[in-house]
Amino acid sequence: MQLWCRIKWGESLRNRHHNCKINALFTCGAAHITVQYMRSTMMQTPLLISRILQHGSTVHGDSEVATWTGEGARRTSYAEIGRQAARLANALRDDLGVTGDQRVGTLMWNNAEHLVAYLAVPSMGAVLHTLNLRLFPEQLIYIANHAEDHVVVVDSTLIPLLAGVLPHLTTIRHIVVVGGGDTEKLQKDGVAVHRWDELLDGRPETFDWPAVDEDDAAALCYTSGTTGNPKGVAYSHRSIYLHSMEVCMAESFGLGPQVRDLCIVPMFHAMAWGLPYAAMMSGASLVMPDRFLQAAPLAQMIAVEKPTFAGAVPTIFTDLLGYLDANPTDTSSLKEVVIGGSACPPALMHAFKDRYDIEVIHAWGMTEMSPLGSVSRSPYGVEGPEAWAYRYTQGRVPAGVEARIVGPVGEVMPNDGKAVGELQVRGPWITAQYIGEDGPDPDKFEDGWLRTGDVGTLTPNGYLTLTDRAKDVIKSGGEWISSVDLENALMAHPAVLEACVVGVPDDKWGERPLATVVLREGATADAETLREFLGDKVARWQLPERWSFIESVPKTSVGKFDKKRVRASYADGGLEVVEI
Amino acid sequence: MQLWCRIKWGESLRNRHHNCKINALFTCGAAHITVQYMRSTMMQTPLLISRILQHGSTVHGDSEVATWTGEGARRTSYAEIGRQAARLANALRDDLGVTGDQRVGTLMWNNAEHLVAYLAVPSMGAVLHTLNLRLFPEQLIYIANHAEDHVVVVDSTLIPLLAGVLPHLTTIRHIVVVGGGDTEKLQKDGVAVHRWDELLDGRPETFDWPAVDEDDAAALCYTSGTTGNPKGVAYSHRSIYLHSMEVCMAESFGLGPQVRDLCIVPMFHAMAWGLPYAAMMSGASLVMPDRFLQAAPLAQMIAVEKPTFAGAVPTIFTDLLGYLDANPTDTSSLKEVVIGGSACPPALMHAFKDRYDIEVIHAWGMTEMSPLGSVSRSPYGVEGPEAWAYRYTQGRVPAGVEARIVGPVGEVMPNDGKAVGELQVRGPWITAQYIGEDGPDPDKFEDGWLRTGDVGTLTPNGYLTLTDRAKDVIKSGGEWISSVDLENALMAHPAVLEACVVGVPDDKWGERPLATVVLREGATADAETLREFLGDKVARWQLPERWSFIESVPKTSVGKFDKKRVRASYADGGLEVVEI
Repeated sequence: MQLWCRIKWGESLRNRHHNCKINALFTCGAAHITVQYMRSTMMQTPLLISRILQHGSTVHGDSEVATWTGEGARRTSYAEIGRQAARLANALRDDLGVTGDQRVGTLMWNNAEHLVAYLAVPSMGAVLHTLNLRLFPEQLIYIANHAEDHVVVVDSTLIPLLAGVLPHLTTIRHIVVVGGGDTEKLQKDGVAVHRWDELLDGRPETFDWPAVDEDDAAALCYTSGTTGNPKGVAYSHRSIYLHSMEVCMAESFGLGPQVRDLCIVPMFHAMAWGLPYAAMMSGASLVMPDRFLQAAPLAQMIAVEKPTFAGAVPTIFTDLLGYLDANPTDTSSLKEVVIGGSACPPALMHAFKDRYDIEVIHAWGMTEMSPLGSVSRSPYGVEGPEAWAYRYTQGRVPAGVEARIVGPVGEVMPNDGKAVGELQVRGPWITAQYIGEDGPDPDKFEDGWLRTGDVGTLTPNGYLTLTDRAKDVIKSGGEWISSVDLENALMAHPAVLEACVVGVPDDKWGERPLATVVLREGATADAETLREFLGDKVARWQLPERWSFIESVPKTSVGKFDKKRVRASYADGGLEVVEI
Repeated sequence: MQLWCRIKWGESLRNRHHNCKINALFTCGAAHITVQYMRSTMMQTPLLISRILQHGSTVHGDSEVATWTGEGARRTSYAEIGRQAARLANALRDDLGVTGDQRVGTLMWNNAEHLVAYLAVPSMGAVLHTLNLRLFPEQLIYIANHAEDHVVVVDSTLIPLLAGVLPHLTTIRHIVVVGGGDTEKLQKDGVAVHRWDELLDGRPETFDWPAVDEDDAAALCYTSGTTGNPKGVAYSHRSIYLHSMEVCMAESFGLGPQVRDLCIVPMFHAMAWGLPYAAMMSGASLVMPDRFLQAAPLAQMIAVEKPTFAGAVPTIFTDLLGYLDANPTDTSSLKEVVIGGSACPPALMHAFKDRYDIEVIHAWGMTEMSPLGSVSRSPYGVEGPEAWAYRYTQGRVPAGVEARIVGPVGEVMPNDGKAVGELQVRGPWITAQYIGEDGPDPDKFEDGWLRTGDVGTLTPNGYLTLTDRAKDVIKSGGEWISSVDLENALMAHPAVLEACVVGVPDDKWGERPLATVVLREGATADAETLREFLGDKVARWQLPERWSFIESVPKTSVGKFDKKRVRASYADGGLEVVEI
């Protein structure tokens, strides 16, 4: 039995000036007093999105969001964003009956109206749900129903997408259409369709933003997992506020009024890396590409809107590089681009630096992490190839992300840049579980840490290098073998076009590597030759015994090796295997 | 009667996936249910100093603190700071019996050991109390007793100061001396004296830092008010953590590994503006001047240790400027210096820019504010004289500091850059009251806002200009008259050497200005002449009716006009007054 009481120290225990609390813990048979800690005198100010909105729309009221229209940009000052946010909140509450923690979905590109929804919905106490328009229709239906979205705000250019899934959306009662165009396809019993402009017209330009709890949900985002249903996380006001501060820190993206951010990373994907909130917090201006994500319009935006900073996935920048090389464009404003979402090819980093004097910064994160996990700026004072080696890594973790490497049998590995294990993280902007699950799924969470599902190393100075996905690493006798390392080593052989290495069951070791190899046309090489070739490149115990020469490696829809299918082929006896 | 219960929504109200809470509020006679907000799925990670320590001493273990010795610098890596912090915590707990929220005082200059104490003491759950060695002895005695300091860590060079007050310190049980020298003077019954090196020697280099509550007190700082006893504030782990992030944001000081901070502002004064914690959080290196605060050694530190950044009060930089002008020194590493603590003369800002290409950034804050309140970077894109005009102000408030201007009768004034009122602030790193007081003192706090005691204006884009102290402003018939504006206008007259304007009681208006004037030697001017001179410089209703020609303006110990004494002289009839 525990009995907790709070006594003002000055009153009952001794003459004392401070307001302290004591927790007196009485246990059966023995009484002892645990002196707990002196409370601070600081204000109990919750960290809320409404504060970001109010600050950004007043102090940084002259900063702007420029939304690309195909021809040029339409401009909305942050002061105007603030007024529109209040109007939207009034309309949602008064006309659409949004109360409490109801979910308001967005099916939108990056534009000014999406920014208004980003700010207004959480600030009024409701919960923003960014619907990923790249999901398969059945996934879209699943997440909108799972989140119980009450309202969806949709760009008119995305009406066909919404119309296709609308019959299956069970909780939607209101659709708000941004932009002109025919809304006929959105007819459904019990669902009202509104026009954004008409809805906001004449509403009050202020709203009495409620003092919600900073741990309440502010926004939902679902992961686009390749297997099973998407899983959602609910960001809190606190986590978004802290993450926004991190994005403005010099070690991360250094957002501030001097930055003009070309925000290519979609607002429906991991909250656009937190850039919209951070911009509003710090007064950085935003250039929003709307649906114009091809290289040609992006190049035009850079030339015309003169962003200083941009963020996107590698493929976007690969396309852009090709376009710029073929079509000379003024990119002189652009100083820094952040690449994340998947590993950034070093060649791309060098090409931008050498040809356009643009620094490419590699960053890593996950939807489950708000998403910022690490940013690859080289350590201060390190120059030349060593600096580049740091920049090729996934980067350095900030104070808000505690990281550890956990080995095959659950042991915490040293941060020596060599020991390989699964990366686990924890911190104030990392999720503790998925929405609607009873608790942390042990496959994804362990002792309060998020299991990232990535395998790699951590250096003593906090740089993260990720190699395999945990499901692809080969667990051989209590040691881990990187399938990617073996593949890279094999593909360096002149006869090898592609090599895909997977773990297969082994009676003695648990798992051993199977190397499947596609030879170049006309080239010949046998298993012995390739095994010998690997001999001085990887540790002896890592050398594959099982080899299979195949015509092509099965690929996923996004062009990655489909290792699940390779493992299945092996299990089914569908592969001709040489053992040596 | 209120009865609160927590129901899992999915269990009792409707089929629902999320973990939600509902607060059902039953009141007498009527029952209504307030739907509260969906909880986030984010980790409940407290914001603690121990996280800053662990992060800085590992990820940024190669960053360093260089402590000036008079000849050169001794270097301590952040990895070593981490080991010493663990050793100190072990020693404090095991040998000195520090438990719970006991206070550990420091009477120290800026040096590596002070940084160790800054980190170790709060991280172990105890409370750091930085003793301001510039206080009068009776104030020092008051604050050490008021805070009930159990331990004092003292630099050996400050033993004479401590010895002088020691007989009156009632709660001290242990003194830890850093550095060599005679400790004989510290003998007192019931007080043990330890040597820092001996105390730390052989202790474990790790410590199991406790998971304290983020709202618990981490550090105390007392204001050095000119009247009455000093008043203390208790910073929390949370407030220090958030403030550290702000210091690393680009809009503030942008600390990161690329910064080498010459930390002149004393660690016993408003936590050295939070720079030590921010440096540890972000990997900025620190150059610590110890007791060598004169211009000559500071210039030498700049030349030898090559800081990129520095922070101090104006007088330090005025002295430094004079020294540099007379003694050519390599200051090329230094890009930015922040001046705070009192208003920065524009001439000083221009001199550093013109002669040394150093940007002087004006900042404003208070001990009650952790202390960062505003930083005067000009708005992006503004150039030339307009940019300078912004830089002369106290600066722009960040999102973490909400500011308002409150007029003479308590009304909130517009942020139009013109309306004058008392500045009030609130936010997560601002104190809600003073230590040991039953609640917020209404003279210092109002409706959850801190009354800064400063009077000024706020522009629509968040720039703050402070003119008077609230106690010096003249409250005339519901309007406020700036004494400083009148003084500046008067001192522009060629016959006027000094002018001090104070408010004096007036039957009709409540208060009216009294101008006390010191004429230049040999110059003549009467009240009518001066009043006419003011005619086109201030509003007619602000013109003083009461004039007194005096030999000199009484001054405070730091050389400011002593307006209290001027008002007292007037009240006593000690001034010869002309009324016109």
